[in-house]
Formats: sequence, structure tokens, C-alpha cells
Amino acid sequence: MKNVLLTIAYDGTNFCGWQRQPEQRSVQEEVEKALSVICAQPIRINGTSRTDAGVHAHGQRANFIAEFGIPVEKIPAAANGILAGAAGRKYRNAAGDAVILAAEEVPLDFHARYNAIGKKYLYKICCSRKPDPFQRNYVYQIGKALDLDAMEQATKFLIGTRDFRCFMAAGGKEPETTVRTVYSARFLRLDERTVGFEIIGDGFLYNMVRIIVGTLVDIGQGRKKPDDMPDIIESRDRKAAGHTAPAQGLYLSEVYFDKTKLSEGIPAGEEIFRKTRSGE
Amino acid sequence: MKNVLLTIAYDGTNFCGWQRQPEQRSVQEEVEKALSVICAQPIRINGTSRTDAGVHAHGQRANFIAEFGIPVEKIPAAANGILAGAAGRKYRNAAGDAVILAAEEVPLDFHARYNAIGKKYLYKICCSRKPDPFQRNYVYQIGKALDLDAMEQATKFLIGTRDFRCFMAAGGKEPETTVRTVYSARFLRLDERTVGFEIIGDGFLYNMVRIIVGTLVDIGQGRKKPDDMPDIIESRDRKAAGHTAPAQGLYLSEVYFDKTKLSEGIPAGEEIFRKTRSGE
Repeated sequence: MKNVLLTIAYDGTNFCGWQRQPEQRSVQEEVEKALSVICAQPIRINGTSRTDAGVHAHGQRANFIAEFGIPVEKIPAAANGILAGAAGRKYRNAAGDAVILAAEEVPLDFHARYNAIGKKYLYKICCSRKPDPFQRNYVYQIGKALDLDAMEQATKFLIGTRDFRCFMAAGGKEPETTVRTVYSARFLRLDERTVGFEIIGDGFLYNMVRIIVGTLVDIGQGRKKPDDMPDIIESRDRKAAGHTAPAQGLYLSEVYFDKTKLSEGIPAGEEIFRKTRSGE
Repeated sequence: MKNVLLTIAYDGTNFCGWQRQPEQRSVQEEVEKALSVICAQPIRINGTSRTDAGVHAHGQRANFIAEFGIPVEKIPAAANGILAGAAGRKYRNAAGDAVILAAEEVPLDFHARYNAIGKKYLYKICCSRKPDPFQRNYVYQIGKALDLDAMEQATKFLIGTRDFRCFMAAGGKEPETTVRTVYSARFLRLDERTVGFEIIGDGFLYNMVRIIVGTLVDIGQGRKKPDDMPDIIESRDRKAAGHTAPAQGLYLSEVYFDKTKLSEGIPAGEEIFRKTRSGE
């Protein structure tokens, strides 16, 4: 028996999300169908993160345990060959929209969800007034200028271990706790028209990143102030926070399974990681 | 009566191409439907170039003549509002995949096709071995290294006034002549993984750019040599040229209606434009 950990990238546009759903096209099901062919048996995978419809991934992770003949390192190319032709007529332009970037053997007790200690998300925002038909499924098109200084000021209040209930959407399963640790949160200039909001944390509540981004955009448009952020968080009230930014701007960038890699992933100057970790 | 010239950008992924076709979703029809609403009458547009299914445009042009109430400068925003919601259920992620970038009034005898004196196309090629689900409908994914030096050497044989019949696909209408003038052809580095082949000419035969790119890729992979290019062109035989590169890498970048703009569009050092034009 082998336990295989996969790194998967996907364009979420034509998926109902990560998780299998009846009558819908999910990333999980497409990947499982490809793996079932190359492993010659039904394969079920455990994904780290159940991304929503329209949400993308550069580095989703998933594992499966099975006994099979193909060498582990040959899994990506073999599975991608099947995925490239697997979209079916209904989604004629979707073929190849999920790819396995890497496969590695891990200990049998490893689980892609339960062993994850951190995640990095990227959210892309485009402020250009000029509509761009190539970006419609891949960024949040604001169509006007944002006060990025105000948005950057507000991000500092996000960092730390807090009850983030105000950023949790209704409709998900009530979690054991709504306390999460955000290790870093910052804006990056991606190109002359696009900024990225990058956030690293030990875990995120349902729609948390999208509601944080919606709140930051409200601040960038002057509907809220940077200094409102502490009160919003302390309120523990979803209604105090901003709108939910659309799914298509969100990318699951990376999943961390060990502290060294997570520590390396935190941008320099973000001391919170070492502080919160040493406080454990 | 006003004659209005439009600049249109589109993601060709979910279109059957520019031209209206029964039971299919074309750029022409989607734009005409939006214009018909805002002009309160049935509008038919003349496009410059009948791009194929999957081919994109940054600068398609089209004109229409009508008497209508809306100020010309308000046409783009009004039409784009309709186009953003116009994809229908079958193409749920397509909404907004065609946008009108600009509208200007032109003389009544102006025609977007007959008055065009030149066009610029861009073809995107990605050599990365790593499959990228976000690029599948937007570049030609070669998946291995290309000899770009050899490809660049071959481009010089393309420049000039020649019978380019070898690069014409069967299936189109037989043109009056297969002689065309290529003013410039060059490779551009778009990012670390992607190169662009940019070509400017007075006009292009059916699938000409895609067959030129396929021939250049064959040269880049060592199946043909740069010095084969003159013989390929002189053969006037489609079978002597290379494969047809896929539609999704091709972008109609710009259409030229006057000699000054066309001249400005030619990269420095390309003397052919002035030579061929002065030889008229």
C-alpha cells in the first residue's frame, strides 16, 4: 500500500467546486476518475480544502492510499493525459482545467486535510476602468480606483490569533471554534492594473478570505475606515463586516504541512508567526 | 444617419467565431443584439476580420450605420452592460467575454472591412513543461523547449510581397489573389514562459497566421530548417508548409485604416513597409 500526496492546480471556472456533488462537475471527481483509470481501481482522494465554485487553485493538495502498479512519479503525466480529454461535450473548452503538478509518497498515516497546519490564499483585484474580457473569471473587476493605502493600513489588524466570526458566512457547518491565527496579510502589485491580497493563516472559516477582501474593498472605496477593522472583528457579527468578494478572484496558493516551510512562507517582518507559535 | 466605428475585444473561447451562424453563439450576433437594444432598432455590423472559433481579439473593428438617440461616446458602456449579462444559461461563465472598448463617428462611406489597409496579429506560444490550467484556451502549449533562434531566422523570409498560397488552408473562399505583403514579423518575450509571434501585413489568407506559426514551430523543433522557408513559400503548396497551430493562441491585435498609423505600428528597422509602399 502506498499513500500518495498530490499537488493540483485548477481553473475553477467550470467546476462546481472541489467537492463531489451529484450531477455536477467537481475537481475531486474529475481527478478521481483519472486516477481510477491509471490505478485500475476506484480511487477516492482526500483534499485539503473544499474550495467553492469558481475558486481557483495553484497548489491544492490531496492524498489517496492504494496498491497500484504505476510508479508514483509517473502519476502526474498519466493523469494529466486523461484530464486533458475528460471534460465532455457539455464543457468543451474545459478540458485540461485541472492538472496534477506533482505526486510524492508520504507515510501511511498522512492525511492532506488533518495534517495541514497552514494555507496561503491569493485574491486578485483589478481596478482598471477598461473592461477586460480575458479577466472576467480570474479577478475581481472593481472598475474604479481604490485607496490602497487605507486597505494596507487595515490589514495589520487582521494579523494575530482572534475570533474571526465576523468574517464567516452563514450556511457552512458550525466549526468547533471560530478562532483562527492569521500569520501574514499583505498586498502585492501583480501588474500595472492588478493587485493581489495574500493571506497566510492556520486555517480559514467558510468564505473568510472573500469577506475579508470585501471588507477591505469597502475600506478602499471609503465606505468604511481602516480604524473600523478592530471593532468589526470584535463585534463577532457578520453584518458589521463588508460584502463577500466574488469567487473568481480567489486562488488557493499553497498548503503547509510542516513548520519550516510555513515559516519560510511568511514574509520577512511578520513576527506574528514566531510569537504565536512560541506562545503555544 | 451616423456611421459608427467600434473597437471590440473578446475572449474567443465560447464563440463559434466572429461571424453569425445559425444555432451558434457568435461575437457578431452578441454585439448586434446589445446594439439593437440601445439603438432601439435592429442593427447589423460589418466586422473587419472573420476570426475563427477560439480566436481572440484585442482590437477587432466593426462599423454600422443608423439613426439613433444615444450619444456615440455612451455606446460602449451601455452595450457592455448588456453584454455582461447576455451569455445565457448554456454559457454561464461567458458573460462579459466580448466588450466594446471604443466607439467613434466616421464618414458615411467608411467600411470596417474595405477600408482596412493592414492588420496586426499576435500568436502566443508557451514552452513550459509544467501544464498550466489557466493558459489552456489562451496560448499554444508546446510543453518542450523550442529553438527560438532558428524560428527568428526563419521569420525574415516572411517579410515582403509574396504569393503566400502555401500558408492558405483549404475550405475558405478562393481569394482574387494569394499575394500578400507582410510588413513585419518578429518574436517578443511576453513572460518567462511565453513568447509572442507578432505579424503585420496588408491582409492574411485563410488560416495564414496559424499555418505560419505551425511551420515556425516545426522549425523550432528541428523538423524543418530556417533555410527551408524560401522553398516552402515558392512551392505554393500547402503540403510543403507545417501544421496549423491551434486557434486559441491567436489574437487579432490591431486593424489599420491609415498609412500613418500603420507606419507607426511597424517596428523600427523594418524597411519593407516604406519599400513596398514606395514601389506602388
